[in-house]
Amino acid sequence: MRIALDAMGGDHAPSVTVAGAVDFVNLCTNTSVVLVGDRKVLESELSRKRYPESRLTVVHAPEVIAMDEQPLSAIRKKKKSSIARAVELVEHNEADAVVSAGNSGAAMALALLKFGKLKGVYRPAIATIIPVFKKPFILLDAGANVDCSPENLLQFAYMGSAYCRLMLGRRKPKVALLSIGEEASKGNELTKEAYKLMEKADINFIGNVESKDMFFGKTDVVVCDGFVGNIVLKTSEGVAEGTIRMLKREIVKIVTGRLGYVLLKPAFNSFKRMTDYAEYGGAPLLGINGNCIISHGRSSDIAIRNALRIAADFSEKKVKETIARDISLIARPAENTVVAG
Amino acid sequence: MRIALDAMGGDHAPSVTVAGAVDFVNLCTNTSVVLVGDRKVLESELSRKRYPESRLTVVHAPEVIAMDEQPLSAIRKKKKSSIARAVELVEHNEADAVVSAGNSGAAMALALLKFGKLKGVYRPAIATIIPVFKKPFILLDAGANVDCSPENLLQFAYMGSAYCRLMLGRRKPKVALLSIGEEASKGNELTKEAYKLMEKADINFIGNVESKDMFFGKTDVVVCDGFVGNIVLKTSEGVAEGTIRMLKREIVKIVTGRLGYVLLKPAFNSFKRMTDYAEYGGAPLLGINGNCIISHGRSSDIAIRNALRIAADFSEKKVKETIARDISLIARPAENTVVAG
Repeated sequence: MRIALDAMGGDHAPSVTVAGAVDFVNLCTNTSVVLVGDRKVLESELSRKRYPESRLTVVHAPEVIAMDEQPLSAIRKKKKSSIARAVELVEHNEADAVVSAGNSGAAMALALLKFGKLKGVYRPAIATIIPVFKKPFILLDAGANVDCSPENLLQFAYMGSAYCRLMLGRRKPKVALLSIGEEASKGNELTKEAYKLMEKADINFIGNVESKDMFFGKTDVVVCDGFVGNIVLKTSEGVAEGTIRMLKREIVKIVTGRLGYVLLKPAFNSFKRMTDYAEYGGAPLLGINGNCIISHGRSSDIAIRNALRIAADFSEKKVKETIARDISLIARPAENTVVAG
Repeated sequence: MRIALDAMGGDHAPSVTVAGAVDFVNLCTNTSVVLVGDRKVLESELSRKRYPESRLTVVHAPEVIAMDEQPLSAIRKKKKSSIARAVELVEHNEADAVVSAGNSGAAMALALLKFGKLKGVYRPAIATIIPVFKKPFILLDAGANVDCSPENLLQFAYMGSAYCRLMLGRRKPKVALLSIGEEASKGNELTKEAYKLMEKADINFIGNVESKDMFFGKTDVVVCDGFVGNIVLKTSEGVAEGTIRMLKREIVKIVTGRLGYVLLKPAFNSFKRMTDYAEYGGAPLLGINGNCIISHGRSSDIAIRNALRIAADFSEKKVKETIARDISLIARPAENTVVAG
């Protein structure tokens, strides 16, 4: 198994990308990592580390796409960027999966362009594992498609179900549609139409879920369009961060000043780890014909290490191949009237 | 000033509605409240309380619309429900505003039906004050319209701006469009079109805001469609609740067992009050030709008291009249090509 890492991508690259990769190859003895980026910079980072040299190598890429560049024009202009080269390694079967914490728009566009979609898939989706509060669940689409059709959401349900089965080991994942009430009649035009399709689908569809309830173990997979998914993720981040800040202020007032803060710091830190999506490492782009894991721009070295582990798991457990099979089963026109979304 | 209260509406009615109304008339000496509902039940509740009798009276209504009834069929079947009678008091100028914590779909439908829309308004919107974390801000639409046009969002921006100016006393409220990135190019079809309209509008438009940032004082008014607004509110509730539960568990592990919990309880409670939208009392339905405040079904007596205060403020500060004027200014067809949404 071999993972290509966009070593120049992310707010804290290349120091955290190199550190995360070194950690990973020291822990996982059956997987190699290829660091893609400026050879000089990366070798200088590596010179201070200890690691099995046969399993951590460098492939040179002279250009970097910045976090704030417009994705499509950047990938046109910078043909030799670290993310483009990393994707190409997978395209040419020189690696099994690619991980990037860089410009996510550019990473997704390149993966879609070079790998193509799986047969029958209308739109790929980003599947994020949300680790709070009761048990982790999968939310998709987390932001790949801002405008979706009901048929897109139906496919997300199948893809999310396969991902959950294989990666979280749940046998018959409960799949819910994110809406503003549990009844089938609650929702907007999109969700009401998607409900009808999902009801008839060969998945364990449990109906609508409200965004308040999904955090407490009601479901394994939550399906929504990418605009709503992104809003949910960022609202959660904001509220969790604000809650922690505010409680810190309140608690310090009560538990003997500074002492309170010192006493409670471990609790806050352990909580922060649990709720920090970045720590979970990364989210795959489902529905494309290649393995691509997108990480948060502000990934730490631990997040990068975890993303590499997810990439290895994702390849090994053949999530892509399973999705290809599941989608081919629903796409048979004789049995199904699903149309291009 | 006289407020009609749907005394039978809400999970804990009539005990909390009566208690909240009694509190209110004892505190606000220039406002009367009419309790609308089953006379016997209400008089029995009142018999145990002290209050100025001239300012707290009962109007009989023999029927109640339950929380889980289908709104439209319920208002057709139950013409003499407490919420219908309360709305009618305002319709017939026997009260200045109506407050209900009951079936919100029924309350909104009745208000829209009996009061009608203000001239030029395409769709009314629910405006919620969100009290976390830095300073309160207004989010609309919080759930009245699940499918919106760009023109609807533009009107929400004007209505939210007026509400913020008058109710929160901010002179030139910063109005933002909720989206998934700050750049004008980020968002879905709806927000991208709405952005273009809002850019040209006579409001203090500051562009897109991400749902993570809106909690930290970036903006005074946040505009979105009712589906997204409802998802944001319920995600926030879920995350805040989960965060508190989880931190309690973590903290108890560290600060000497039970003692930790006892020590920290005041902090958690004071935080809960700050983040509990119910405590804020209620949200007006903006854009209709009458004053209607919708409260959370699980409102406490404090929430009801606050909702009555908001209703009195809303009438006194002439929010409805200001919105009517502002909308009439943008709707002039000669200057503006806005079309019915």
